[in-house]
Amino acid sequence: MKNIRRSLFALLLTNVVFAADPLPSWNDTAPKQAITAFVNKVTTPGSPDLVPPAERIAVFDNDGTLWSEQPMYFQLFFAIDRIKALAPQHPEWKDKEPFASLLKGDVKAALAGGEHALVEIVMATHAGLTTEEFEKVVTDWISTAKHPKTGKLYTEMVYQPMLELLAYLRANGFKTFIVSGGGIEFMRPWAEKVYGIPPEQVVGSSGGLKYELREGKPVLVKLPEIAHNDDKDGKPVGIQRHIGRRPIFAAGNSDGDLQMLQWTAAGTRPNFCLYVHHTDADREFAYDRESHIGKLDKGLDEAKAKGWSIASMKDDWKAVYPD
Amino acid sequence: MKNIRRSLFALLLTNVVFAADPLPSWNDTAPKQAITAFVNKVTTPGSPDLVPPAERIAVFDNDGTLWSEQPMYFQLFFAIDRIKALAPQHPEWKDKEPFASLLKGDVKAALAGGEHALVEIVMATHAGLTTEEFEKVVTDWISTAKHPKTGKLYTEMVYQPMLELLAYLRANGFKTFIVSGGGIEFMRPWAEKVYGIPPEQVVGSSGGLKYELREGKPVLVKLPEIAHNDDKDGKPVGIQRHIGRRPIFAAGNSDGDLQMLQWTAAGTRPNFCLYVHHTDADREFAYDRESHIGKLDKGLDEAKAKGWSIASMKDDWKAVYPD
Repeated sequence: MKNIRRSLFALLLTNVVFAADPLPSWNDTAPKQAITAFVNKVTTPGSPDLVPPAERIAVFDNDGTLWSEQPMYFQLFFAIDRIKALAPQHPEWKDKEPFASLLKGDVKAALAGGEHALVEIVMATHAGLTTEEFEKVVTDWISTAKHPKTGKLYTEMVYQPMLELLAYLRANGFKTFIVSGGGIEFMRPWAEKVYGIPPEQVVGSSGGLKYELREGKPVLVKLPEIAHNDDKDGKPVGIQRHIGRRPIFAAGNSDGDLQMLQWTAAGTRPNFCLYVHHTDADREFAYDRESHIGKLDKGLDEAKAKGWSIASMKDDWKAVYPD
Repeated sequence: MKNIRRSLFALLLTNVVFAADPLPSWNDTAPKQAITAFVNKVTTPGSPDLVPPAERIAVFDNDGTLWSEQPMYFQLFFAIDRIKALAPQHPEWKDKEPFASLLKGDVKAALAGGEHALVEIVMATHAGLTTEEFEKVVTDWISTAKHPKTGKLYTEMVYQPMLELLAYLRANGFKTFIVSGGGIEFMRPWAEKVYGIPPEQVVGSSGGLKYELREGKPVLVKLPEIAHNDDKDGKPVGIQRHIGRRPIFAAGNSDGDLQMLQWTAAGTRPNFCLYVHHTDADREFAYDRESHIGKLDKGLDEAKAKGWSIASMKDDWKAVYPD
């Protein structure tokens, strides 16, 4: 009898939770209305638009969509801290770009080499370690490093409205994935705790891996080569390779996410595309068509032309970061 | 009240199901006893060996572990049927190996070229199509093609004891994955229906993919290049890339699975490694150390040395295929 009473209580509680606003940090404006209308449509039993739970795949970009990305990608702060830590073992870096500029604190000069410089930095700081060693380095860094402008931990600069959106979708039978241009092994150590997204639902850029036995113990060593660049055209490729099923919900914030949104929008099931628009210089950052990071130009035009949802951080979000 | 009665009935039913033997097609011999002892150990609340559900990752090889693989990999039957169908568009194949031999029905001569011939066959038959076109080709083939010896559909040549094992693990909070040397896009169209494993939990060998717009519609085109060879050393790499978490349960049947089992066995959590041993010439096929397909030699030695479970199809399985 006690168990029955407990079950009934749990049932009641569930109903209360569902009756409450699942997206309290969103203003009651167009994006929120469109999101909830879409979710109701694809989850209502008997509806012609009902999508079976197995096909409720939702994909989210990370940088600029789930957490901030200014003044530069957070993974680059991580890489720079690694370079400083490793510099004593690499005296040659003093005269070699992009390392020389980075060690002098001149990030802009270091990145003048464009994508090539970025790749060199990532390789130098990520390769050579085993996956377990790298996980530890990331875990240590992410739990202590602070953002230069806000002084917050980087994981405190995730977007509260997006955390609510992830939870809302999951409560409605969606499986939520990250599909990011960032490094897959950089996100996995903390994505489960911060976003509720387990490692097997993180898709990202990846380097080569080599299996070997070290003193009889199997390890996977990170190689200085790119196996998959999960950006732009690479996002639908990463989705197909990892998920093998077309998403019905996709959220991004930049032109790098455009192909992912196009791929989602071209499915035969009802689908939903969302752009997060960085319009809030007071509470976060304001940038779009001219930005060097997270440029949103073609994507903004296509979103407007196709009627995708655009969430203006300034107008549509009550809060940006968690309290 | 009706709902409460229904809930109680469902609860009772659940208990009945759990009380029944979850592995009825396994004899009550060592492998079954070891499997159930392991599952009880890692799922018993309060046990020092309890593994949180999120970390209950189970990986299964496909060819020879979940379905048969003799007299040759079933994907090769598929590729040969494709070559026959495509031959009219490729008159040059009449004079070009490995196609010429295949078209004459001489598979042995065609495969004399070793891995290179295999790759040529797979490329010629898989590349150029969009992922959607390829999915349709596989779906059509798998629902009609019959095995030359048994006359069964290939999906009827899955192992009943392994279907029960997959279901038993899932009922105990495990997430089950395929980790196969076979093509990822070849398995996904039917793995969910046959094994209860959704596309996002299938890891396999994969070719390159290219995103492009065809008449304004986004497609992913299969390229004639290998992106990942998910065999031997490639299995732990595929596991890390797709799952990002070390399995605690792994099942294979050949030396190609050895690294996957080593990787699983080297984890810090309690873990379980299983080899399916093809010992039953009457009900299936009998082969191991000398076989050209599914060779089990080093793996058998290592399994014995390390005390991994070895399921002899003849001695440990009551049934092989579903009725």
